[in-house]
Amino acid sequence: MAGRETITLTPAQRLAWLRLVRTDNVGPVTFRQLLNRFGSAEAAIDALPALGKKAGRPLNVISQARAEDEIAGLARYGARLVAQGEADYPEHLNYIAGAPPIITMAGGQKLDWQRSIGIVGARTASTAGIKMTRLLASDLGAKGYVVVSGLARGIDSAAHRAALETGTIAVLAGGFDRIYPDENIPLAHDILDSGGALLTEMPLGWEPRARDFPRRNRLVSGLSLGVVVVEAAKRSGSLITARLALEQDREVFAVPGSPLDPRAEGGNLLIQQGARLVTCADDIIEGLGNINPARRMLFDPEWQPESGGDAAPPAETDRARLLEALSTTPVEVDELIGQTGIAPHAMQILLLELDLTGQVEWSSGQLVGLRHN
Amino acid sequence: MAGRETITLTPAQRLAWLRLVRTDNVGPVTFRQLLNRFGSAEAAIDALPALGKKAGRPLNVISQARAEDEIAGLARYGARLVAQGEADYPEHLNYIAGAPPIITMAGGQKLDWQRSIGIVGARTASTAGIKMTRLLASDLGAKGYVVVSGLARGIDSAAHRAALETGTIAVLAGGFDRIYPDENIPLAHDILDSGGALLTEMPLGWEPRARDFPRRNRLVSGLSLGVVVVEAAKRSGSLITARLALEQDREVFAVPGSPLDPRAEGGNLLIQQGARLVTCADDIIEGLGNINPARRMLFDPEWQPESGGDAAPPAETDRARLLEALSTTPVEVDELIGQTGIAPHAMQILLLELDLTGQVEWSSGQLVGLRHN
Repeated sequence: MAGRETITLTPAQRLAWLRLVRTDNVGPVTFRQLLNRFGSAEAAIDALPALGKKAGRPLNVISQARAEDEIAGLARYGARLVAQGEADYPEHLNYIAGAPPIITMAGGQKLDWQRSIGIVGARTASTAGIKMTRLLASDLGAKGYVVVSGLARGIDSAAHRAALETGTIAVLAGGFDRIYPDENIPLAHDILDSGGALLTEMPLGWEPRARDFPRRNRLVSGLSLGVVVVEAAKRSGSLITARLALEQDREVFAVPGSPLDPRAEGGNLLIQQGARLVTCADDIIEGLGNINPARRMLFDPEWQPESGGDAAPPAETDRARLLEALSTTPVEVDELIGQTGIAPHAMQILLLELDLTGQVEWSSGQLVGLRHN
Repeated sequence: MAGRETITLTPAQRLAWLRLVRTDNVGPVTFRQLLNRFGSAEAAIDALPALGKKAGRPLNVISQARAEDEIAGLARYGARLVAQGEADYPEHLNYIAGAPPIITMAGGQKLDWQRSIGIVGARTASTAGIKMTRLLASDLGAKGYVVVSGLARGIDSAAHRAALETGTIAVLAGGFDRIYPDENIPLAHDILDSGGALLTEMPLGWEPRARDFPRRNRLVSGLSLGVVVVEAAKRSGSLITARLALEQDREVFAVPGSPLDPRAEGGNLLIQQGARLVTCADDIIEGLGNINPARRMLFDPEWQPESGGDAAPPAETDRARLLEALSTTPVEVDELIGQTGIAPHAMQILLLELDLTGQVEWSSGQLVGLRHN
């Protein structure tokens, strides 16, 4: 894509990537750190038991058989695993914090993944909101844009339906076999039948929990040049998507509405905060002209294992000192290094161990703090 | 007001100001030029017949009796004439291009003319638009702001009504005895009874024509710190008021609405062009914080007659040369001087004569061009 050099994993590598991604507490950031430290997913998997032991908690790496089962199960759904760096990996996702190392997708081979716009909004949308969504989605489709959304009720569904003929991408919050809500299973089939795509970063069989929806939303915005919010309350998933889109340096568009209509509160608020007011597809396309196409690559898929393997391992006192310095307020690693005096290489290993054992968590891929429990 | 030195016209001066203001083609700019050149309204009136003769067209100065009739007539309506520079002249009006040299007003003695917000919108407003207007006007009133509007049907009327208790100012497009529309005569009385104000720059007996409404709108915005547009079509008087407000360096606020509602088109367009989206009175008050209170005084009420009275009068060939240089596209006087080589003083006299005889017109008080016929 876009002339970038791509990799193709061997079946054994893909299996190892999948096992590592599916290991407890291995998020996108930890995955990259493990590959960085051990050189390959296979080597990281071999090293995990010892890492867990050091941090005082066992680590559950999923078995090779379970990973093989997932791959076989996905094939039955016509879905495939795509790793970051591979040709099919959506280009725009490379530039978001916490890009999933591996995604499951089906369909979408002929879509223009580069010209993609997210449309999100209320599940309990008004008739006018649905009508507006249809207008925007079909007009954007007619002008060559692919419509990305989350397959939810209301605005999401209307956006997908109106873009079936021209191309649409649905991002799931759960596994491929756990489409939510049930009533949208036929829509998911229609999307695939029409050449659209379904994708998720979650394992087969994963039932989506509340916290998985904001996580999914970062992929809706991450896959898109910009996101349009059609009807949204002040505290809503759509506003989270808009915030994530801003963090990802994507354009945010909002459809205005009467201040007397609670469903317009979110959109009006976004406009007050700087989102572009849009009334038609052309307003959106015009707004995309302002997007800076030179994005910062957060995770280079052509990473190399680091050469510092011989540096001194962390001392036992370092781990205690680090745990004392950490709080639930996330801070930068450099601050932790400055405060504790722990050497950078030892700090990296300690954080990796604490991350793998669920004791710390990363925000935006750059800040680290104690995990809230 | 605001510590500025004020003048008080003698009855004779007031009569002369009124006669001069009511003379054909004597607009605010010409009025100032005449006072500048002749030192007083009385002297200007004496000089007008000769000026008209030079420019080849007779000039109708209204008679002293007619001016006296107007003053007597106004008294019957409880109205008074207020000249620019006098204590009662609304402070904000001093800073607009073409501030009326004299206005007719009634009531308003206890209003805080400095804390004033214009609310304008569609005559054929929706129920939601009327409700929104009432909310904004009554909340602004409760927070100490005076509501300015144009006494039209729809949004204007709703704004005045909701602000009766707290203070409201209605600007008329015609004479004091020609309130338009008729159905709002009771509202005009209610405004006066509640301590509000009515004002106009037009003579008693003047029936408002279509072109008088945009002219009136410049006073609605000119009297206000900012203007709120509630419901407005794309081509509407409210959008003209918003444009005038911007030219006058006033803040422009707009209430958003669904793109599917034609009455929201004007407001949404204004927001796209940079107006502040507002959903409540606090949004407006917050937006006023950005207003630069250091305004440029366009016409200093403490003018002095210029001393260049002895400079050479224009040559006959100058007039022909100037008429040739002018077109209906307004240009700056300095450009005309540069192009024609006519001396500045002579240029001023020629433009004054052409202005008085209706051959040229001024835009924004600074650009001059041939009058469209």
